Amino acid sequence: MLNKSNCLIAQSGGPTVVINSSLSGVISAAMENPNIDIVYGAINGIQGVLSEKVIPLNDTFKDKTTLETLKTSPAMYLGSCRYKLQKIDEDIATYEQIFRLFKKLQIKCFFYIGGNDSMDTVYKLTQYAKKINFEISIIGIPKTIDNDLCSTDHTPGFGSAAKYVATSILEIAHDAYIYDFKSVTIVEIMGRNAGWLTASSALARNTYNAAPHLIYLPEKPFSSSDFIEDINIMFRSHKNIIVAVSEGIKDENGQYISSQSSLTTDSFAHPKLSGTAKHLENIIKNMIGCKVRSIELNVLQRSAMHIASLTDINEAFELGVSAVNNALNGLTGKMLTLNRISNSPYKVQIGYIDIEEVAAKEKTIPLSWINDAGNDITRELLDYMRPLIEGEPTIKYKNGIPEYLSIDHLK
Amino acid sequence: MLNKSNCLIAQSGGPTVVINSSLSGVISAAMENPNIDIVYGAINGIQGVLSEKVIPLNDTFKDKTTLETLKTSPAMYLGSCRYKLQKIDEDIATYEQIFRLFKKLQIKCFFYIGGNDSMDTVYKLTQYAKKINFEISIIGIPKTIDNDLCSTDHTPGFGSAAKYVATSILEIAHDAYIYDFKSVTIVEIMGRNAGWLTASSALARNTYNAAPHLIYLPEKPFSSSDFIEDINIMFRSHKNIIVAVSEGIKDENGQYISSQSSLTTDSFAHPKLSGTAKHLENIIKNMIGCKVRSIELNVLQRSAMHIASLTDINEAFELGVSAVNNALNGLTGKMLTLNRISNSPYKVQIGYIDIEEVAAKEKTIPLSWINDAGNDITRELLDYMRPLIEGEPTIKYKNGIPEYLSIDHLK
Repeated sequence: MLNKSNCLIAQSGGPTVVINSSLSGVISAAMENPNIDIVYGAINGIQGVLSEKVIPLNDTFKDKTTLETLKTSPAMYLGSCRYKLQKIDEDIATYEQIFRLFKKLQIKCFFYIGGNDSMDTVYKLTQYAKKINFEISIIGIPKTIDNDLCSTDHTPGFGSAAKYVATSILEIAHDAYIYDFKSVTIVEIMGRNAGWLTASSALARNTYNAAPHLIYLPEKPFSSSDFIEDINIMFRSHKNIIVAVSEGIKDENGQYISSQSSLTTDSFAHPKLSGTAKHLENIIKNMIGCKVRSIELNVLQRSAMHIASLTDINEAFELGVSAVNNALNGLTGKMLTLNRISNSPYKVQIGYIDIEEVAAKEKTIPLSWINDAGNDITRELLDYMRPLIEGEPTIKYKNGIPEYLSIDHLK
Repeated sequence: MLNKSNCLIAQSGGPTVVINSSLSGVISAAMENPNIDIVYGAINGIQGVLSEKVIPLNDTFKDKTTLETLKTSPAMYLGSCRYKLQKIDEDIATYEQIFRLFKKLQIKCFFYIGGNDSMDTVYKLTQYAKKINFEISIIGIPKTIDNDLCSTDHTPGFGSAAKYVATSILEIAHDAYIYDFKSVTIVEIMGRNAGWLTASSALARNTYNAAPHLIYLPEKPFSSSDFIEDINIMFRSHKNIIVAVSEGIKDENGQYISSQSSLTTDSFAHPKLSGTAKHLENIIKNMIGCKVRSIELNVLQRSAMHIASLTDINEAFELGVSAVNNALNGLTGKMLTLNRISNSPYKVQIGYIDIEEVAAKEKTIPLSWINDAGNDITRELLDYMRPLIEGEPTIKYKNGIPEYLSIDHLK
């Protein structure tokens, strides 16, 4: 057990609608714990640590209602960054600066909520703490709509994004079925290298809705000629075809299908994609000639709290609580994980894994969960995803729009 | 009072999430009324009348629960069409065919739920009925997310679309504010010539959120140089700028800003637009060079029942009920209207107007409700819109997705 101390929380990477639920869990558990004094939040992730933009949170969240509102507010209350830490021996000054602040603020627990790039940051900070013998618990709390973190059954944020995707596909299907002529609707879904979120579109299927009729994932090479054939075969039994496609589908040579010319990279050297659906729309236009439209679900996949999964919100919150308890027990250099104990009834347990096992690695869909033709998923994958979108939170509304927590401090 | 008779309902034009609420109102009132025997629905609007795709609805909806589910199911249970009736003297055979079916099925009331093009159909059918002395009540029930129908305070479908737009803008703002660098997010909203739906983005503003910071509507000419200046001025006080832009903005010469090359027309000779936000994104990229992205809200604006306005749903339902009662009182050749009696508390009364007053006409935003700079709306317009998005319906969920009514019969 550590002595009474302060803790610091930060968020990093792209938002999910439940990243604030985890933050709410951390703040809630830390404020209730007699061994923790001040709960600090760094604004804009590790960048805020470097620029000393760190604020105490105790006063803001002394009221339980505010913590509840935080739990159901989208995106990131503490802001984010895309800052990549260099290796320790390449840029030791940055590490010294970070730990100077840790010392100054008497930080004994540091929680970083993020995806695989953020876990890389957790890994490097843990290494440095060990190197200089700094007594601190550093714990990574997973989040990503992409569901591509290793060693955890799934990631917080995925379930809610999946619920948004499935609901949107169902509503798009209702919209598409109204006209009495052939049509193809192509829906582009986020996911650079992992197709989990695109696969979740299959959760839209019910007794009367077969959409999405075709699903294309980055895990299997995409062939334009197979695509045309798939559409033509599907037209034999369906008038209006809905296609779910991942932004990151690639051809046999590993080249992104989206227009190559507009390809740029982000600060982690990941290619930034756009226009995959548009490209497929043009293929249909030129090769089949029926009515076709493309829809990019865009950032609402990761920010539409109003249609979040209650299961996801609660799991994210519990991970935050568990992070505090584990840190006070001296755990460090770990990412917390969700381990599925049973599927029916659905039950998870929280565990943890050495951070080097997950840092900067990606988990893609096992090929055995994709059909042979590469245009649909298997029942196993459906069964895996189904419990994650269950349950609807109670969202408060004011003047007809959701009442979220103010993020004035980010301006 | 007409003698006991059958009635026919059809839907036409683009979907809204409450067009089935009106249908539910019609079916509910018609089935309860002792003067109506069979309630028929035409599949795919007037096209279904022409091809005799007409189904009796009494059995399907004898259960109140099914009517309730219909009331909160998006898009169009009876399907739609974009069929434009020619003038009577140009194509009398079509009219004869329609009225042959009316006679055969003993239709004494015909209800057409639609927008301004559908009201044109109602107008022409009324003219023909008068011409041949056919005893029938033909009533138009308004719907359109565009809110561009004349003679009614607002149109069913607008409030729900506005609630979706405002909620999405708020969630996009939460997503945009997380990074500590300048950015512009351009959100493209539906509306060919009327900016009502784009204006509704302003309902996203609250105590901490000023987004959308700029609003561009088709009612005022758009100037690229003014746009750049607006953005630069806004950057003095805001880091992350959200722009709401109508798909239909035009330059001083009345030319659509969206890429001219891809301009095609639909069967009513309306130009089909795409890419306005993309065009603005490129302007920012080239002239300012900060991070910029564009988002098209796309068909979810008109199909996202899960975030519908309860006020809208209830008004649409009541219009359906009123249509039946008015038809049985012999009313014909009218479109029902919503007349606002009071704004606070918000109160509307149902009225009606001669169909020729509304057919194929468009109501745009009064210029006095747009600011002088042409980049925002006035408080009057905000006050007008605010009550329309109030209230949240109870949507049933099954397996994590909304439970809507099957549309298997449209396949």
